[in-house]
Amino acid sequence: MTKKLDDTNLKGVDRRDFLSLGAGAAGLFCALSAKDISNLSSRDVKNIDAAAASLKRPKFKAKAAAATLDPVDRYDFDTPDPAPGGQVREYWIQATTVLWDPIPTGKDAWMGGKQAHKKFRAFVYQLMTPGFASTAGVAQMPGPTLQADVGDVLRVHFRNADMTLNQPVTMHPHGVRYTPDYDGTYLGDFTRAGGFIAPGEEFTYTWECLPESEGVWPYHDHGPNHVLNSARGLFGAIIIRDPAKPRPDREVCLHLHSLAPPITGTPSMLHAINGRAFAGNTPTIRAKVGQTVAIHVLGMNSDFHTWHLHGHRWPDEAGAFVDSPAVGPSEVISIRYTEDNPGRFLYHCHVSSHMDAGMAGWYLVEK
Amino acid sequence: MTKKLDDTNLKGVDRRDFLSLGAGAAGLFCALSAKDISNLSSRDVKNIDAAAASLKRPKFKAKAAAATLDPVDRYDFDTPDPAPGGQVREYWIQATTVLWDPIPTGKDAWMGGKQAHKKFRAFVYQLMTPGFASTAGVAQMPGPTLQADVGDVLRVHFRNADMTLNQPVTMHPHGVRYTPDYDGTYLGDFTRAGGFIAPGEEFTYTWECLPESEGVWPYHDHGPNHVLNSARGLFGAIIIRDPAKPRPDREVCLHLHSLAPPITGTPSMLHAINGRAFAGNTPTIRAKVGQTVAIHVLGMNSDFHTWHLHGHRWPDEAGAFVDSPAVGPSEVISIRYTEDNPGRFLYHCHVSSHMDAGMAGWYLVEK
Amino acid sequence: MTKKLDDTNLKGVDRRDFLSLGAGAAGLFCALSAKDISNLSSRDVKNIDAAAASLKRPKFKAKAAAATLDPVDRYDFDTPDPAPGGQVREYWIQATTVLWDPIPTGKDAWMGGKQAHKKFRAFVYQLMTPGFASTAGVAQMPGPTLQADVGDVLRVHFRNADMTLNQPVTMHPHGVRYTPDYDGTYLGDFTRAGGFIAPGEEFTYTWECLPESEGVWPYHDHGPNHVLNSARGLFGAIIIRDPAKPRPDREVCLHLHSLAPPITGTPSMLHAINGRAFAGNTPTIRAKVGQTVAIHVLGMNSDFHTWHLHGHRWPDEAGAFVDSPAVGPSEVISIRYTEDNPGRFLYHCHVSSHMDAGMAGWYLVEK
Repeated sequence: MTKKLDDTNLKGVDRRDFLSLGAGAAGLFCALSAKDISNLSSRDVKNIDAAAASLKRPKFKAKAAAATLDPVDRYDFDTPDPAPGGQVREYWIQATTVLWDPIPTGKDAWMGGKQAHKKFRAFVYQLMTPGFASTAGVAQMPGPTLQADVGDVLRVHFRNADMTLNQPVTMHPHGVRYTPDYDGTYLGDFTRAGGFIAPGEEFTYTWECLPESEGVWPYHDHGPNHVLNSARGLFGAIIIRDPAKPRPDREVCLHLHSLAPPITGTPSMLHAINGRAFAGNTPTIRAKVGQTVAIHVLGMNSDFHTWHLHGHRWPDEAGAFVDSPAVGPSEVISIRYTEDNPGRFLYHCHVSSHMDAGMAGWYLVEK
Repeated sequence: MTKKLDDTNLKGVDRRDFLSLGAGAAGLFCALSAKDISNLSSRDVKNIDAAAASLKRPKFKAKAAAATLDPVDRYDFDTPDPAPGGQVREYWIQATTVLWDPIPTGKDAWMGGKQAHKKFRAFVYQLMTPGFASTAGVAQMPGPTLQADVGDVLRVHFRNADMTLNQPVTMHPHGVRYTPDYDGTYLGDFTRAGGFIAPGEEFTYTWECLPESEGVWPYHDHGPNHVLNSARGLFGAIIIRDPAKPRPDREVCLHLHSLAPPITGTPSMLHAINGRAFAGNTPTIRAKVGQTVAIHVLGMNSDFHTWHLHGHRWPDEAGAFVDSPAVGPSEVISIRYTEDNPGRFLYHCHVSSHMDAGMAGWYLVEK
Repeated sequence: MTKKLDDTNLKGVDRRDFLSLGAGAAGLFCALSAKDISNLSSRDVKNIDAAAASLKRPKFKAKAAAATLDPVDRYDFDTPDPAPGGQVREYWIQATTVLWDPIPTGKDAWMGGKQAHKKFRAFVYQLMTPGFASTAGVAQMPGPTLQADVGDVLRVHFRNADMTLNQPVTMHPHGVRYTPDYDGTYLGDFTRAGGFIAPGEEFTYTWECLPESEGVWPYHDHGPNHVLNSARGLFGAIIIRDPAKPRPDREVCLHLHSLAPPITGTPSMLHAINGRAFAGNTPTIRAKVGQTVAIHVLGMNSDFHTWHLHGHRWPDEAGAFVDSPAVGPSEVISIRYTEDNPGRFLYHCHVSSHMDAGMAGWYLVEK
């Protein structure tokens, strides 16, 4: 049985007919045009944040008669149920800002020496207990890894809990199937409810895990200020499994991203993995000889990378053995092998400017 | 029956023995070395254009005895005929400059707000009626999509009709088979007739559609000033089909490229699709539930992109499902699926600086 | 029979307990952080080289009790023997600096005109006769192509023969299997013997050629100053073959890399192939109609490329025909086809700023 999307999905939304800022807000956003984040000034960032904070919810349904709307914009959609045998996998997640240290050890355990570090205001997805009763662990970067099987639906109760940056945000998933209601994307005048979750609001997304959704995918903010807010840490991974296949003994998701000076307030760019830079801060992966290992590498910024693991090689999707596959923005490569090589190995992006600015880590294999 | 390449292929060529500009012209071209177009000054562009306009046809055959020529340079080649059962597919195409507005609506229909826009002098391939009798529709970017079946030959009658930029240009195809006569590439001292079509000249290219040519490929200028002139719009697509396979119900070619300030004369870089930037200007793709859809994404500049379509996923060549595949310079990804998800969806490059500067559009699915 | 790694593998090592420079040396290395080489000043290069030259061998085994060491760091490893039926393939290679001209003809044979050129101090792997008795040919870029069959072990006797730059270097292979002893990678406090070969020292690496090692892989310096020294030319290729498969009639390895002004001392960036820039300097590849051809394209810098060969197309790993595949840092694409198209053709990177700065060459096919 499916149910219509209704008001119970959208709590706390101010339904007044806001005046849209229109060209004014968009004009401020223009500071982003064709610029990498690293080229923004702190004033640019301030202006973009101010524009996002003052943006009013688009009057989508109220504009139903407007000439700009297409017939497809008037469609209503059902909320999907699991396929036969499938389950509803529920998550409660809030977006929150947190002071975050990208180099907590203050050192680079590979090349040696101290690394200057200080906390900056990150924006992350935090796992909550059911009903948003309480936090489920510390807020960290990346957000929780959402897991489901083919045939399930993921039901994600999402709350924008941040009052500091005070901006609308969303959760936009890759790989799963969703109707436009659950796309989690700001579309300007065509924005549906899930594409604009203002501070204090909640929204429940429902996503279908199709057979072709099997694999690993990113999720991230796709609200009006998605470029800055994703760069602040609003991202995570989704793993959809075929329950008939054995699970790997060791499994890890590595999110490759950057922490640019306009985001961190520090003078130099960091190239990070899961929010941390430099070996000893990035994930130290452990495995044992004989274990099956799965390493999922997600491209979470706008760079292209090649991910190299020393001492190992594995088949790519076409069956050719590789040890430094490319991963682009929003691409995911899933590496699978049975461990057979004990000792300490390095993993790193093979783009030298990324590797030198922190995109490296340890992989330790026990006999 | 094949025929030798002869003078009937080359009309209006001035056969005098020009003095080559040699190192002088090349020196001017050096402004391009190792620079992205976006780093050129308007003076650089002016100098490069002047060098191209003053360049004389290389004296290829006259130099047949020169020490620099290799035995392979003295080969004569037959013009190919279709394979048994194949056809000759003829096109008449002229290169022409046109004033082109990359943002005709003056708006970004996704993020909202006005976008400054003005026309610049684009350089495009324009479809003509047989015998160059008249234009076949308005000159636009990209050029016409050339279509043929495996076993056919494409016979493209090409005219350089532009007297404004006044430079030699060509048509260079990917994917099809051609002899050096029909390569359509300027090779300096080794240039054959099809590699230098001066203003006012015509040349007929003949390209074979082999079984391994099946698929979608770019064509573009490869004359002496190919980098600037391709960036001005001298590009298009070739589709070679296996006639035994069903055609998709909906098929679209998306050319990802950039319109840099030195080309457009406007202060900021645009990242464009099919000559246009920002949703509502870029192609709005329409499909219906149940239709088979083919979207061919061509990398037509020097950037690497990942192309994301919301609400959909499809198998890559190796059979793995993806929703944000990478596409590099001159690469093509062909996306095929049966439509099953109604509503309005966004498509965009997942490199944020490209997306923010216009590389996004609408995909509308009717029930 | 396997033997323990012992002192016979490491000759000339000064075993005194050096004081580590620690944070000081690392501080100098920080000039590299997040910078492409092209953004370094000559003073940066000088400082980085000085830091590398003053770096002391990490006291790995002496630190065995230190809290920073993991149990895996205390493992001892056997030196592998060939698989049944396999052989030991021995190479003697020294690292040496050499004055190297990237444009020996002083010309661009494609676009015409002179190209300023002068020699710079390159750092290369040089093939030696057995026992380091003498040089085996001229030192050149890239280093010798190491060849072996599946089931063999590669035993590479390596000597750091350079006293000019006076820095520790290594040989780090991709694709083959190695224990941490033979990784050839500087790991700071966790460095094993093969990861720090100081000037005047020798070390013997032993690498296993597994079934999944079949293919073509890069090797390169991975010592403490690997980014600069690889960019100076410390790289080469490894080909591992299935002996049951026929060898191609023509086979060539093309290393795509860059020679940045801080490396060459010349004002403009060169994009090079096998140490040379511009057609007529880069490899001129020759083939005959009917020959089987293998072209291995190795990404040896931090850029992404697409490699285009005119007049040809070939199946990628998934079986789809391409003519401009992408190749990223440390990736290798192996192109195989039977030659059927005589004449002169161009090959080049399809990134225009790379192509314009030298990343192009000739491919000549005889009838």
